[in-house]
Amino acid sequence: MSAMTPFKLLTSYEKALTIIQKTLRPIDRIESIPIETAHDRLLAKDLLADISVPPFRRAAMDGYAVKAKETFHASTTEPKRLKLVDKIHAGDSTDRSLKSKECIQVATGSPLPKNADAVVMVEYTSFQGGVVNIFRPVYPGSNISPKGEDIEKGTMVLKKNDLLIPAKIGVLAALGYTHIEVYAKPQVIVISTGSEVRKIGSKLESGQIYDVNSYTISAILKENGAIPVPHSPVKDNHEEIKSVIANSLDYELIVISGGSSVGERDLLSHVVEEMGKIIFHGVQVKPGKPTLFGIIDETPIFGMPGYPTSCLSNSYHFLKPAVRLIARLPPHEMRRIKAKLSQRVVSTSGRLQFLPVNVSDGIAQPVFKTSGAITSMSNANGYLVLPINLDVIEEGQEVTVYLLR
Amino acid sequence: MSAMTPFKLLTSYEKALTIIQKTLRPIDRIESIPIETAHDRLLAKDLLADISVPPFRRAAMDGYAVKAKETFHASTTEPKRLKLVDKIHAGDSTDRSLKSKECIQVATGSPLPKNADAVVMVEYTSFQGGVVNIFRPVYPGSNISPKGEDIEKGTMVLKKNDLLIPAKIGVLAALGYTHIEVYAKPQVIVISTGSEVRKIGSKLESGQIYDVNSYTISAILKENGAIPVPHSPVKDNHEEIKSVIANSLDYELIVISGGSSVGERDLLSHVVEEMGKIIFHGVQVKPGKPTLFGIIDETPIFGMPGYPTSCLSNSYHFLKPAVRLIARLPPHEMRRIKAKLSQRVVSTSGRLQFLPVNVSDGIAQPVFKTSGAITSMSNANGYLVLPINLDVIEEGQEVTVYLLR
Repeated sequence: MSAMTPFKLLTSYEKALTIIQKTLRPIDRIESIPIETAHDRLLAKDLLADISVPPFRRAAMDGYAVKAKETFHASTTEPKRLKLVDKIHAGDSTDRSLKSKECIQVATGSPLPKNADAVVMVEYTSFQGGVVNIFRPVYPGSNISPKGEDIEKGTMVLKKNDLLIPAKIGVLAALGYTHIEVYAKPQVIVISTGSEVRKIGSKLESGQIYDVNSYTISAILKENGAIPVPHSPVKDNHEEIKSVIANSLDYELIVISGGSSVGERDLLSHVVEEMGKIIFHGVQVKPGKPTLFGIIDETPIFGMPGYPTSCLSNSYHFLKPAVRLIARLPPHEMRRIKAKLSQRVVSTSGRLQFLPVNVSDGIAQPVFKTSGAITSMSNANGYLVLPINLDVIEEGQEVTVYLLR
Repeated sequence: MSAMTPFKLLTSYEKALTIIQKTLRPIDRIESIPIETAHDRLLAKDLLADISVPPFRRAAMDGYAVKAKETFHASTTEPKRLKLVDKIHAGDSTDRSLKSKECIQVATGSPLPKNADAVVMVEYTSFQGGVVNIFRPVYPGSNISPKGEDIEKGTMVLKKNDLLIPAKIGVLAALGYTHIEVYAKPQVIVISTGSEVRKIGSKLESGQIYDVNSYTISAILKENGAIPVPHSPVKDNHEEIKSVIANSLDYELIVISGGSSVGERDLLSHVVEEMGKIIFHGVQVKPGKPTLFGIIDETPIFGMPGYPTSCLSNSYHFLKPAVRLIARLPPHEMRRIKAKLSQRVVSTSGRLQFLPVNVSDGIAQPVFKTSGAITSMSNANGYLVLPINLDVIEEGQEVTVYLLR
């Protein structure tokens, strides 16, 4: 039986995050995608408008296109009278112009007669016998959208790294783009290890359990802008783990769960040491101490604890910021609420503790069972962060809950 | 030229939301999907565990399976000595049992010998000549996960309407589910109207503009749990609009933009009146007054303003809560921050005003240009809500910004 290699120095949470941040690089891979699917993606290039929006001068209201000066001094009692000579619909092309004392009916969005310089809103007119009575004067430019009012041809409308929120998708559409170059989503291979671990869909034999971690990790990856590529579970075998990793070096990130503790079977650290470099192994957090971060041939690798709750907790606290950085997404600001603790909590681990709680009606109820229990997290809708130097929080004390949603 | 029908009584924002809430019904359509895609979906049925998790009694630590009483009184100076007779790996099936003064090596996750009742952590042992020295006593049950510790067979683990966050996906995996019944995502047909409006990818003729609204509306729908089904732009023609709507009544929701103002061409309200019922038309908000909400053959229909900013603003304020209700998603709590206003803002519309701002370094800068300008929203990362009775906010005053992301 081989020697056990206990963790030496645990890396603090803050230091681990700093190391991750310094080690990872934002993705450079670019792809062209239809704008219908570009929502929440990141633009890979500055974008200059190659048309003006609107591309022509148009009516901003329903009413009558006029020469503004012919409406001056109009009033309810002494309306100005203009002859209605035509109608321009939105979508029409026109080369009309107005002669003296003429007007043309327009709708919002209609192009305007060349020499019209204002639109009188229909509300301030009446129509009778081919003549429009104008009850209020308009200034030159009134109720008109000049060509390029929204976007002038040649201006930079969107910038590299812009997150494509709905309004920015709208800008792309306004300019007529069908496709757009965005940063690719990082492809992340997700590997569960453990000779007892079986893929869902297979029948469990005695001594076996279903793979949980690759599903929870994949869900975290998806909600943070990455594409998870699940691998079927790998046995606790040095050569098998090595071979799977060797075949995974083209991914933007490798996430492997199980095998990062210090038991005899905890092969991952040896494999990473052989193939590349361990950057940290063992973090001063609870749950989730035996987390490993390393790099092999420029491909970063996370070794997550095998226990489902430890694995998931660390996926929120380490993997999520890491993958958002690679995906170029801004850090996720979690919603926080204040609540009163339902029971006394003792924390003597000497580690930063993430304590899952279910908060409702202002009461935060700890729901942690064991690190092995996925229900330690599935019944939680948030968590508390208990500092390293904290011993006890009393029942009824106010705490800050970080909400998972 | 036909009569204009101006808005009569504007519905207040709060009342409009209440009406929407009372009118819409959460979706009942159910579909079975692979759990790999179930993230963020809503469970359609209560779920009872049909296996125990773990399905067998197992070691919770790396070490040695023992009879606890044979470790009592062990100490560093006077270790208890047990004969190492076997090794059970995680994933092994076993029918071993321990004889007197025997122990068996186990790893985290290994099934246990029948009559072992504790595991001694490897850290508190040494091994020499076939014998394990135990330096600390363990209690019965120490470092053991009983069968069903996480989930007991037959218990209700997830409930109808549960949002499948990563931890709940983990529960599904732990129980071996490959597929799960969830509520279907509402299918929403998205129709832009306007004779001047062209689909992206086509060449603009004089007087034409590209469709913006169906892309922004679709993005809002996607980020709120629905599936947008874009329709190509429809001309301002009563019969055409009617026919498109008649063909859309199988969708969970119809969203149509343009044509809900009061101009001559604003056909939608007439069409809805003919085919079904207008529930409200005209809302006391700015931008976005000419919003219509109705129902045709039990299918709800939103008529959004044609102007891109009005349309998008109202998509956030009316369509988003509506579609989340249909999709059974909880209301979205927007992040709010405090900031100082960069310039004086005057609001004399007599309507509740949503003012797009760009906030950075604690300063909120209004970016609204015109309702027709999509850049009124695309340069914003949040908005202010200005109450109806507000006249002026002075430069430098503290305001609450609702963040779009």
